[in-house]
Order: sequence, then C-alpha cells, then structure tokens
Amino acid sequence: MREFEFIGRIKTAAKNTRNPVIRSIGDDCAILPYTKQYDMIITTDSFCEGVHFSREYFRPYEIGAHAFAASLSDICAMGGRPLYALVNISFPKKIKQKYMDTLYQGILDYAGNYSTDIIGGDTTAAPVIMATITVIGEVEKGRALRRDKARPGDMVFVTGTLGDSHAGLKILSKKTRSGLSATEYIPVKKHLVPQPAYMEGRMLLDSGMVNACMDVSDGIASDLARICEESSTGAEIYVDKLPVSFSASKTAAQYGEKVSDYALYGGEDFVLLFTVAAKNAKKMADYMEKNSLTVFEAGRITAKKGIKLVKNGKKTIETGKKVWNHF
Amino acid sequence: MREFEFIGRIKTAAKNTRNPVIRSIGDDCAILPYTKQYDMIITTDSFCEGVHFSREYFRPYEIGAHAFAASLSDICAMGGRPLYALVNISFPKKIKQKYMDTLYQGILDYAGNYSTDIIGGDTTAAPVIMATITVIGEVEKGRALRRDKARPGDMVFVTGTLGDSHAGLKILSKKTRSGLSATEYIPVKKHLVPQPAYMEGRMLLDSGMVNACMDVSDGIASDLARICEESSTGAEIYVDKLPVSFSASKTAAQYGEKVSDYALYGGEDFVLLFTVAAKNAKKMADYMEKNSLTVFEAGRITAKKGIKLVKNGKKTIETGKKVWNHF
Repeated sequence: MREFEFIGRIKTAAKNTRNPVIRSIGDDCAILPYTKQYDMIITTDSFCEGVHFSREYFRPYEIGAHAFAASLSDICAMGGRPLYALVNISFPKKIKQKYMDTLYQGILDYAGNYSTDIIGGDTTAAPVIMATITVIGEVEKGRALRRDKARPGDMVFVTGTLGDSHAGLKILSKKTRSGLSATEYIPVKKHLVPQPAYMEGRMLLDSGMVNACMDVSDGIASDLARICEESSTGAEIYVDKLPVSFSASKTAAQYGEKVSDYALYGGEDFVLLFTVAAKNAKKMADYMEKNSLTVFEAGRITAKKGIKLVKNGKKTIETGKKVWNHF
Repeated sequence: MREFEFIGRIKTAAKNTRNPVIRSIGDDCAILPYTKQYDMIITTDSFCEGVHFSREYFRPYEIGAHAFAASLSDICAMGGRPLYALVNISFPKKIKQKYMDTLYQGILDYAGNYSTDIIGGDTTAAPVIMATITVIGEVEKGRALRRDKARPGDMVFVTGTLGDSHAGLKILSKKTRSGLSATEYIPVKKHLVPQPAYMEGRMLLDSGMVNACMDVSDGIASDLARICEESSTGAEIYVDKLPVSFSASKTAAQYGEKVSDYALYGGEDFVLLFTVAAKNAKKMADYMEKNSLTVFEAGRITAKKGIKLVKNGKKTIETGKKVWNHF
C-alpha cells in the first residue's frame, strides 16, 4: 500500500494549480483544456524489470508492447483516442543493440496499431530495463469517463473476464514457454501482451450512459475501491458473478488456488470497470452487444462507504488481500 | 555515442506521423498545435542514479530539484513557458519515507518556482532511484526557438559560463561537501541544483533575432554539432573565447586538467547555445544586456560540415573527446 500513500501525499501537495486543469492526479489521465471540440488527456506509467516483469519469461518485443499497452489503457479508460507518445527507456549497459531494437519495435508497432505518434523520449543506462511511456490523447470536450462520478444505486460492470493475466503470470512462474498447452497459452499471452480496451472505451463514451469508469490494472477489489474513494461512495462486489475464463479457472484449480482470488486481486487485466444508473443498465448492455462488445455485471455502488464482497448471499468486508503488489 | 545512434533509429522509425505534429524527435521539445496563440511544447528526461548522479554526494532534495531543472531546461531552450509536469519516480524498496518526501519536495518547490502544475505521474520500485520528468509548456505560435534554423555566417553565443557543472562534479568526486571553500562551493552548487535559463529563453525569443537555439546539456562541442546536424551546416568553436568562471579555471588547474576541456565537453551547464545572423549580433547582445542578461561569443556557423576548434588562430577538427558520457 506504500505506493498509494505516497500518491496521496503528492496529490495533496499538488492540489493548487496555477494553470487551467480540468482534472489532475487521481484519475486514469489528467484532463487539460485543448481545442474547441476536444479536451487533452495525458497519462504516464513505468514498466520496470524485477517489479512488473522478468526477462526470464518476457521477450524484448513483449516488454515494449506491454509497456505501451499499459499506458494506452489509461487513455481507453477515459473513452479517449491516443495521439502522441513519449518513450523513456533504460537499459543495462550489457544489453545488445538487437535486443534494444526489438523492444523498441514492440512499442513502435503498438503505437502504429493505435495511430499514435512517438514524438519524443529519452534513453539512459540503468541496472534494469525500465520503460516509461507517456501517452497524450484527446476526448470529446467535457465527456471524458472519470472515476469520480459513480452514484449510489449504480450497477457495476466489466468489459471482459478477470484474473486471466494473473493466471498467465502463475503459469509463467511454474513452466517454460515452449511446453504450454493451448489453454495455458491464452492467459499467458494476455499477461505478456494485453490488448487495451480501445473500442470498449469509445463505445462506452458514445453510449452516454456511463457514470464512472477506469481500467482494471490492480484487480477489481482495489480498483473499485478507487472509484468509490473518488466518488465518495462504497460498493458491493458480486463475487459469484465475476466473469472468469475457463483457462483462469483451470489454472487456479491446478495450483490449489481460488479463481475468485485471481478475479478479485489479480493485476493487469486492463478490462474496463464502469458504473451505470440501474435504469440504464439494460439499454447500455444492449448497445454494447449491438457493437459486438460484451459487458458483465460485477457489483453495485452503495451510499455506505467501504467495499463488501457478496458471496453465497453473504456479505463480508473486503480486507485487501493481495496476490500482486507493484510496490 | 550509443545513445545518439539509438535515438537516430527511433527518429527514422517514428518519422511518418498520423496526427498533426509541428516538430517531432530531434529538438529540445516536440512541438504540437495547441491554441490560437500558442503551440504546445513537450519534453521528457530521465535522471538516473549511477548514471547521472550518486547518492554519495546528492542529497534527496537536490535529486528532485536537479531532475526537474534538467527537463525544464528543454522548455527554456525553445523560449517557452512551462505549464504542467508529469513525475515518474522509482525508489529502491529500502529507501525511507522521509527521503522520498524530501526528494519529492525538491520537485514540488522547483515546479512551484516556475508556476508548473504537477498533474500526474507514477511511482514504482527499482534497484536505483530514477526520476523521469515530463514537462508540457507553451510558446508563441510558430516562434519556438529550434535547432534547425542556423545559417552559415551566423554568430554563435552562449548565455553563461561553460564547464562549471563539470568542475563541480570533479570537486564532488574528490572531496566531502562539508569542507568546501567558497570558490569550490559555487560550481558544486551549479552541478547539484542547476538554474534553467528561463528568462534567457524568453528574452531570446522576444528579441526576434535568434536563428537556432538549444540548451547545453552535454557540452558545447557535441551540442553545437547537433544544431549543425539539424541545420545542415558546420561550425567553428572559438576555444580561446569560451566563457569560463574563475572557479572552473581554478578547479581545472588544481587537478592538472585544461579548463577548455571542461568548457568544450563538460555536461549539464544548462546555459543556452544560440545563433544570430552576424548583422544582428550587436543589437541582440545590447537587447539582452538591457535586460540584465549576458551573452558570450563562442563561435560561428559555416557552410562546410563538421565542427572545427579554433585555438591560437589554428583550426583543428573536433574529434569528440569526452569527459562525461551519460550512456
């Protein structure tokens, strides 16, 4: 929890802005005034060897692609469109040129896939590989999907299955990549090279029905808590209903773990987590389905603070069990 | 030279932009369309323990201040005004909370001094301290001071003495901070907490007479070569005329080194290096002096490619001797 305490301090210290800022620290992106039609959104994330990934199972191309995808996911979480990126990379001195080029190609290809221009950056030596990717995007003026607009009574949804990335990490920590079955390969691939929910974000914004939204990067339990903190609400998570894949279930069973723990606490799924007024829930789900996108019910927003887990009809207080902590 | 080769590859790969970009990789900042009156400029730099600094002589506040100043310097080099910053910091797990807070305070104070709002960032663990600071600023539309506008016959100037930061580093590598004389303390302080040339950049832009400009971060020899590369010119550096401080001269003499090497190859002075048509040189110098700013002649731009060192009336080819290399 050290990281979040520190961010809290920064947030307080940086509260009084001198220049026009629509939204500062506390959301997936900062929001700035931009053109007549668009607000600018900007986000930055560091992807660090030994903390977020290991070279033992990440190939160089995947490091680049993953780092870019993780930053891009914050743009998607606001319903935005990426425009530009800045790329800071550190390499140990002994890393070969070809390795660096391949890693960078992962970034370039992903940036290209999402029509994002790399306009700057910095390279430096360091004891470990670290990629810090800053993405600048735009979103229709005043319409960015934010964390602070959830309302008591809202239904909570996610745009995809939860826990796959953690299942992939688990498999990678136990097995070599060459011997993986198809069932194992799916979550492994999701862990290595996640696909940001770009279309999902754009369609959620377009639906006009979403109250609050963010991407799931640390597990729904802690991420929903952040929506609640920003919105001054609480929430219940319907543990029995959380969407999990066959692969994630199988992996959890194989290692004697609970797939619901993967879903609640597993990091880096990068699906979107959002809330909708109960009266709009069906309409929104239909709208998404019409566009070949799926949403899954995951809980509801409450006036009473705190996160409760609802399981077999019983409610327990979420205590912050962690299977993955970045800091 | 490995860093610059790598940046060259990135530059080529990232050349075809999909979104409006006024200037991309290759200058102090990228330039983007922004408002009716202003272009947006954006830069990012990483400041890494073991590469750019050591905790043996940098105090935490100074690490933060230095990291911010180095990024801000790129905004100054374009004649711009900073608006927003994103702060990514990595800390080893054993670093104490107070140390982190003090480092962050160095960033906050410097940001505050230059009316810059911190609107985002990321913290993560890493084996070493690394601060990546991204600064977004604005500059009067179409008027950013760039590297690619030097013309043969231009005179080359700098806005302050060269080699002080390197002298400071030399002293720090030989002595403890507590026993420094006043003469030693000046370059040491310049190395630890550089002052970005904010007023200089604004006034150079205001003068309307500057052709090309950048900040001196790696020494005038290699930085002027970058102006020449971007402008498709060459240059002569007047080695005898380079402005050096009494402190830098004394330090070089003490350690049996040449102060001209400090001036030519020493990094992180963060003064501005710029070119002006010969016919405007006196007018520009008068303009700066009227505003209590000084400029020093340092060379001239030539049509013939390559950097030549002019010393005692003799010309030699600059061969890229280095006293400081980041990568």
